[in-house]
Amino acid sequence: MEFELIKKDSKTKARAGLMKLKHGVVETPIFMPVGTRATVKTMTPDELKDLGAQIILSNTYHLHLRPGEDIVQKAGGLHKFMNWDKPILTDSGGFQVFSLGEMRKITEEGVEFRSHIDGLKLFISPEKSIEIQTKLGSDIMMAFDECAPYPASREYIINSMHRTTRWLQRCKEAWTDRENQNLFGIIQGGLYKDLRKEHAKEICSIDLPGYAVGGLSVGEPVELMNEVLDYVTDYMPENKPRYNMGVGTPLYLFESVERGIDMADCVLPTRISRNGTLMTSHGRLVIKNAKYKEDFTKPDPECDCYTCRHYSRAYLRHLFNVDEILAYRLATIHNLTFLLKMMKNIRESILGDYFLEYKHEFYKKYGYLK
Amino acid sequence: MEFELIKKDSKTKARAGLMKLKHGVVETPIFMPVGTRATVKTMTPDELKDLGAQIILSNTYHLHLRPGEDIVQKAGGLHKFMNWDKPILTDSGGFQVFSLGEMRKITEEGVEFRSHIDGLKLFISPEKSIEIQTKLGSDIMMAFDECAPYPASREYIINSMHRTTRWLQRCKEAWTDRENQNLFGIIQGGLYKDLRKEHAKEICSIDLPGYAVGGLSVGEPVELMNEVLDYVTDYMPENKPRYNMGVGTPLYLFESVERGIDMADCVLPTRISRNGTLMTSHGRLVIKNAKYKEDFTKPDPECDCYTCRHYSRAYLRHLFNVDEILAYRLATIHNLTFLLKMMKNIRESILGDYFLEYKHEFYKKYGYLK
Repeated sequence: MEFELIKKDSKTKARAGLMKLKHGVVETPIFMPVGTRATVKTMTPDELKDLGAQIILSNTYHLHLRPGEDIVQKAGGLHKFMNWDKPILTDSGGFQVFSLGEMRKITEEGVEFRSHIDGLKLFISPEKSIEIQTKLGSDIMMAFDECAPYPASREYIINSMHRTTRWLQRCKEAWTDRENQNLFGIIQGGLYKDLRKEHAKEICSIDLPGYAVGGLSVGEPVELMNEVLDYVTDYMPENKPRYNMGVGTPLYLFESVERGIDMADCVLPTRISRNGTLMTSHGRLVIKNAKYKEDFTKPDPECDCYTCRHYSRAYLRHLFNVDEILAYRLATIHNLTFLLKMMKNIRESILGDYFLEYKHEFYKKYGYLK
Repeated sequence: MEFELIKKDSKTKARAGLMKLKHGVVETPIFMPVGTRATVKTMTPDELKDLGAQIILSNTYHLHLRPGEDIVQKAGGLHKFMNWDKPILTDSGGFQVFSLGEMRKITEEGVEFRSHIDGLKLFISPEKSIEIQTKLGSDIMMAFDECAPYPASREYIINSMHRTTRWLQRCKEAWTDRENQNLFGIIQGGLYKDLRKEHAKEICSIDLPGYAVGGLSVGEPVELMNEVLDYVTDYMPENKPRYNMGVGTPLYLFESVERGIDMADCVLPTRISRNGTLMTSHGRLVIKNAKYKEDFTKPDPECDCYTCRHYSRAYLRHLFNVDEILAYRLATIHNLTFLLKMMKNIRESILGDYFLEYKHEFYKKYGYLK
């Protein structure tokens, strides 16, 4: 892949770039909506494009279980299967497998686990993860790593991160379609400064198209994430994309970008949509609240998404109240539009060299500053 | 309203017309998708228009309970509330109230019942039903009637149908906005030939913009429905629209149109969509079946709806298998497109005077003829 750095902010590490992938050019910094099971929940690909999505993330673990990577491959790959012709990033399956807790066992070879669906015993190794992702045909494949729990002991992290490095070497060897697919390595190291530095050096010494920071946004306060990013990104090559995994609130996105991050993903905007929470220019709005019963104004007065153009808060509240599917659709359209527009504005602010001013203005309005 | 009869089939009672309502002209015969709670399940109004919907039905009982007709009225009426600017027909609430069985009590004044949501005691009379429908602002309001159970004794039907006539008189008196809203009377009479005739005469002697046949398609075989329609439509004025309530399979629609029916509605096409059943040009297809696991062909080879243009059976099966909302959307798009296109074809066949030929061809392909 070609990654073109277009502009660096003069006051922070924020940067704007272009990531040229087989299925299209992605403007960074970018937020990637999550399409776990070959669909971004409630949305068609056309709607996603209309609201500005340039790249989506899909989950290897879920697709491995259902429908299985062989079916996706026979369909002509994930893009064709799900009718999305823009770039796709697939995770390695590691995060989901490690989240299974007692249901999985880690060895040097890989991870043995039981399917959360039928309890069947399964095994994913670095080679297996790359094999699945190769069959899925994603534009960006993530290396199979261990996302250590938070908090975790120093000893645990040391063992885990070195194994992650060895696994990355094996992923790289298993990586076959180097022309169309791009492998990213993942930096771990918990919240230990020296370990993060050590691991960043280790991972970035392996030549790859891009690198990610893993194990953040797993429950720690934003200050700790910021601290890790502050020193980790310095060890990541400037001419390659940097991806902070699992980040999706405006706060975490602004802070990540400020520290030199180019890519992020999270289920948050789509998940809270289905609970009736809207991100608006004036902060979060819980649409089910009784006070919106007769509120015939737009959900977000400053938004021009399909939902805000056509519906009132009272109507959205009614739909959530009676549990109608259209409620989840309309909220998802709004929240994804909101977040993708925010990322676009962030990019503009970097290009125009007013990133911190935009951040301050956004934080003030959103309610982050008291 | 103005109802223009354009063409009568030379071999049957089938007819094609135009129904001119405040929110638009409806081409008859027409199928009306059901939007029970101010939304046709899973669909946006734009999608409904794209797939050919000209008029939808919404339910007075459900809207009375949530969000309540006063909120809809304050929103500017149902059209504005739900962002649908084409015609809407509202039922009277009677059918749902009578379906409550033990939870309701009928008197001459009206029906006392308990809300299926919170058990609160409520009361709907003919006047109340019209008051609610007036606040909703629908183009066509249905009279408050009793849809008698099937089967029911002769004595029960006699009492019930005469009360329905008296209630219709009260509905007519309560009907205020005669310029924008149209009141339809409903013919009952169970499956008793003489009672149906008697009630048809009784109802149609009251001057109204249109008339409906109620109490059919409630579990009886199609032959019995046909028999009732055969003699009832002869007593309904030719220059006014005739509506057969609750009919939505291709079979019942063809048979109704053949007997001079202009309008029909049913939850069937949207409901079976959410169970994974597709109506296709070659009959019903249960998409969850294992045999579609690796079937990468179009859901319906002869359909050009959004779903059939972009997705395979294997993908749809996967979405249903993992219970994704997009599954229900894509199936709904297909089934409504299928049924509305069938109605459009039926209309064309009447205009071209080849209705029976089209019916035969459709039945053969769909699997109705063995």
